[in-house]
Parts: sequence; C-alpha cells; structure tokens
Amino acid sequence: MMQQLTEYANRIEAALGALLPERDDSCQEGEIAPVLNKSMRYSLLMGGKRLRPAMLLAVCDLLGGDPDEAMAYACAVEMIHCYSLVHDDLPGMDDDVIRRGKPTNHVVYGVGQAILAGDGLLNLAYETMLRSALSHPDRLACHVRAMREIALSTGVRGMIAGQSMDLMQEQISGNGVKELEYIQHNKTAALFICAHRAAAHLAGASEEQMRALTNYANAFGLLFQTVDDLLDVEGDEQMLGKSVGKDAQSGKLTAVKVYGLGGARELRQQFLHDGLAALEPFGDRAAFLRELLQNMSARKS
Amino acid sequence: MMQQLTEYANRIEAALGALLPERDDSCQEGEIAPVLNKSMRYSLLMGGKRLRPAMLLAVCDLLGGDPDEAMAYACAVEMIHCYSLVHDDLPGMDDDVIRRGKPTNHVVYGVGQAILAGDGLLNLAYETMLRSALSHPDRLACHVRAMREIALSTGVRGMIAGQSMDLMQEQISGNGVKELEYIQHNKTAALFICAHRAAAHLAGASEEQMRALTNYANAFGLLFQTVDDLLDVEGDEQMLGKSVGKDAQSGKLTAVKVYGLGGARELRQQFLHDGLAALEPFGDRAAFLRELLQNMSARKS
Repeated sequence: MMQQLTEYANRIEAALGALLPERDDSCQEGEIAPVLNKSMRYSLLMGGKRLRPAMLLAVCDLLGGDPDEAMAYACAVEMIHCYSLVHDDLPGMDDDVIRRGKPTNHVVYGVGQAILAGDGLLNLAYETMLRSALSHPDRLACHVRAMREIALSTGVRGMIAGQSMDLMQEQISGNGVKELEYIQHNKTAALFICAHRAAAHLAGASEEQMRALTNYANAFGLLFQTVDDLLDVEGDEQMLGKSVGKDAQSGKLTAVKVYGLGGARELRQQFLHDGLAALEPFGDRAAFLRELLQNMSARKS
Repeated sequence: MMQQLTEYANRIEAALGALLPERDDSCQEGEIAPVLNKSMRYSLLMGGKRLRPAMLLAVCDLLGGDPDEAMAYACAVEMIHCYSLVHDDLPGMDDDVIRRGKPTNHVVYGVGQAILAGDGLLNLAYETMLRSALSHPDRLACHVRAMREIALSTGVRGMIAGQSMDLMQEQISGNGVKELEYIQHNKTAALFICAHRAAAHLAGASEEQMRALTNYANAFGLLFQTVDDLLDVEGDEQMLGKSVGKDAQSGKLTAVKVYGLGGARELRQQFLHDGLAALEPFGDRAAFLRELLQNMSARKS
C-alpha cells in the first residue's frame, strides 16, 4: 500500500512543480511576482504525504477514469489543503512557527506575503481546474460538477466554516457535541469527501458508487481527526504519564474531551467499521483505499 | 449617468444580500458559521459604488446579453474586490483600521476571522459562478470562459501578483517604471478588464468587440489609478501648499513619483483619450461607459 501511495505522491509532486515552476527575480508582465512565486512554492512543495490528492487519483483508477484528467483536480485539492495550512499558521489564527519541521510561511516571507501565498494557492486551484475544463470541451458538465463539489466542500459552508467555528470554540457553552461535529465534519472530513466525489464526477460514477465513496471519505476524515485527538493524549500518556494532550490543554474541543478517552476509542472503531463497510461493493478494486483506512486507524504517530 | 450607476448598484446590493443573508447564532450543519457570516456581511454589504459589477452589467446591456445570467458574475467580481480589500487592510499588509469611514474587518472581528472572511468571499465568488454555470447547462462553455477570465485576471499572474509586488516596492532599485506598470496593471486594471471580458463572453461578443472592451477597461483602470495618485498630491497641494501626498511620502510608487506631476497629468489625458477611442465602434450604446470614464477623469475627490 505504502508503495502505491508513494507512486501517487511522486506523480502529484511532479504535477504541482510543473504548475508552479521556479522563476527568476525579474518583474515580468504576465508572470507571477517573484516573491509570491517563492512563497507559494515554499509551502506547496514542502513535501507531505499528498493523501487527499492520492485518494482522488485512486478513486479515478478504481472507477476507470482518465488519470491525466483527474490530475488537475488532485493538484487543486492539494493547493486548497496547503492554502488552508498557510492561513491557519498565521498570527491571529493558530500562530504556529513550525510546520513539518520547517519555519512556517510567514516566518520566512512575512505575514503579508504569506496571506497572499494562501490567496494565491486558493485561486490557482480554480485556475488549474478551469484550464482543465476548457481543454476537455466535450466533458464540460462533469468538470463543472467536480469543481462545484470542491468549491462547496471547501467554502463558506464547508472547510472555511469549520475553521471559523474552530477559532470561536473557547466561547462555546454546553457540552460541545454539536460544535465538535461541525468542526470535524467541515474542517477535516469535507476536503476528503470532495476529493472522492470530484473524482467520481469525472469518472462518471453511478449514484450508488457516489454514495459509497462519500460514506467512505466521511468515515476516513472523521477517523483521521479522531486518531489525531487520541494520539495527542496517548502520546502524552506515554511520555508524561497523564492523559491531557496539547490540544486538550489549549482548551480546544477534541473527541477525547467531548466523549472521553473510551468514547473516542469507540468512535475510532466505529469509523473504521463504517469506512470498510462502504467499500464492500468495490471488492478487491478498493484494496488501496481499504488499506489506507486500516493504516490510519492503527497509526501510532 | 449617476442615476444609471445607482440603479445598477441597487440591483447588485440586493443580489449580494440574497447570496449572503443574515442568520441566527446557532451552529447548524450546512450553514455558514455565525461569526463568518457576520464578518463577511460586514465587509461585503458596507456600501460602495459597486463600480466593477455595474460595468459588468453595463457591458451585458450594451451587447444584449441576459442581465440575470450576468448578475452572478457581477456579484463574484464584487466579492473578489471586497476580499482583496479585507486582506489588504490586515496587519502585515497595509494595516489600515478605517475603510469607508468604518473600522476595518479585523478591527471588528479579529485578525483570524478577517482572514477567513477574505478567504470566504473569494471562495463564495467561485461557488456563485459555478452555481450559475450549472443552472445554464446549454451555455456551459461561455460560463466557463467567463469564470476563467476572472480567475486569471485576479489570480497569481493578475491581482494577487500586483499586491505582492506592491508590498515589495520599497526594495525596488532603478526608476520603478516597470514595477509601477506591473502593479497598476495587475492590482487595479486587471479586475476592470476581467469584469468587461466576462460579460462579453457571456453575451457572445465578437473578437472585435472583445478587443474594444478590453482596451476600454484597461484605459479605465489605469486612469482610475492615475487620478488616485494625482488627487493624493493635488489634495495636499491645496491644503498644505506642497506637492507631496500620503502615498508619495510613504515611499510607495505612484504615477506622480515615477513620471512627475506633469507626466502623470499627461497620462490622465492619454488614458481618457484611449478609453473614449475604444468605445467609438459602439456609438450611443456606450453612453454610460463613456460618461463613467469622463467623470473618472474629472474626479476631484
């Protein structure tokens, strides 16, 4: 499985690099401003597992779609994920100075250029999808449906809404169940869901396939977040002998905080079960997605 | 003329309000997060002349297009303009606390929510255009062309590039001619150009009409910026008896700084002339766009 993920990630890496090539420092009409180009490349090409776009390509393969056509959407999904991290790291948001072991974008390029790098990556996602759509004039309708899927899931009723609620969570009264669900669905699961659904639109999936992939992606996204919340606490348990993690200490809503350690562990099992059940109709063709889910559930770091 | 501008602005105001209605403070799946909704509404519905979307609707009328179809694109252009202002006002960018006589978004909602409000408005622009495209399935191709026009002009080789260069301008060596052109074209003119070209795509303009409208919008955008630069200095001349304006003092590149006061006044004449010449083929049907340009050139504040 990891080999196939690496193979997808390498193709995605190459495609992202080609969409945002290095350039010199001159001021050239029609070219990306030099510093903007550097700061976008810094965050976009920093590495990472490329999980979301790899899953998009895997769904394309699973359904027999055209991988070249799907690549623009895979890159768009990764650009959107990346812009959200650049903005999340800014002062006024999470104010993080390190990501993946390197200084965050605003630490290197300044807050102004980091804001613009995020804006630029978001916009470049749409530029990339629209170019792909126009180069497949006979398949415009499914391209526009794929694009809208991504726009809605990552927009003001999706990912951005999740981030906004995430920032407000210290003011939440009550048990936080509804807010945690809102944040985890929108901030984390929505991007996985639209990656799967966009690929399904492009490959002409049936309604049944669309439903199954949506259920799988939703379970995967929620599992991803729940495991994160558990590792935050379990890591601390091992290291410090107490069950309060970084996020728990910061006052952030987590699955552990809202459901307790036992409840969160039950949820992990539930999401694993739901995700595997959703893949059943695809049989062996879903081996990659199945293994990805199992690995995610068993993740130790 | 002003009456027709007001009439367009009123229709745009109503459409923007309908795209982003007020909502209660509850956490509801599928709804915009409450604070995000408030902060987006605060900046989007703050008023303003609605110049860019009004011009988009005027081009639609000039070419006999469908005004209902054009409205989604008019709103998108205004949302993009608005997001760029919200982000421009942030600390790390221009760090402005007042816009149109009211506290800027981040002063009211905090930096984090203001970043998200900007991201949200940008994304909502695409959500709005994509919905319009899908509700006109027989006209998908011209919708996608209109969208791409907007994406490219406001993207990493357009408006965002202009903002990035604008932030870097204190480090520019040389006479700044090339950089000023880059900034004024990308940061200001590009949004006017794509508003005109998007409407032209939707209305099925001929290549000749497309070229004429592009030339007009380019002249209008450059005139807009040059008049701004002149007023910055001329206002000071009247009030203080010296010819150094706020932008000039701040070290920002302006037409006055690069070309001198006489040079900038000549440019104002040149852009007025170019814009009027571009409209000639349209005769009386371009009366609104013609008067808008003349008023812009004669603007005193």
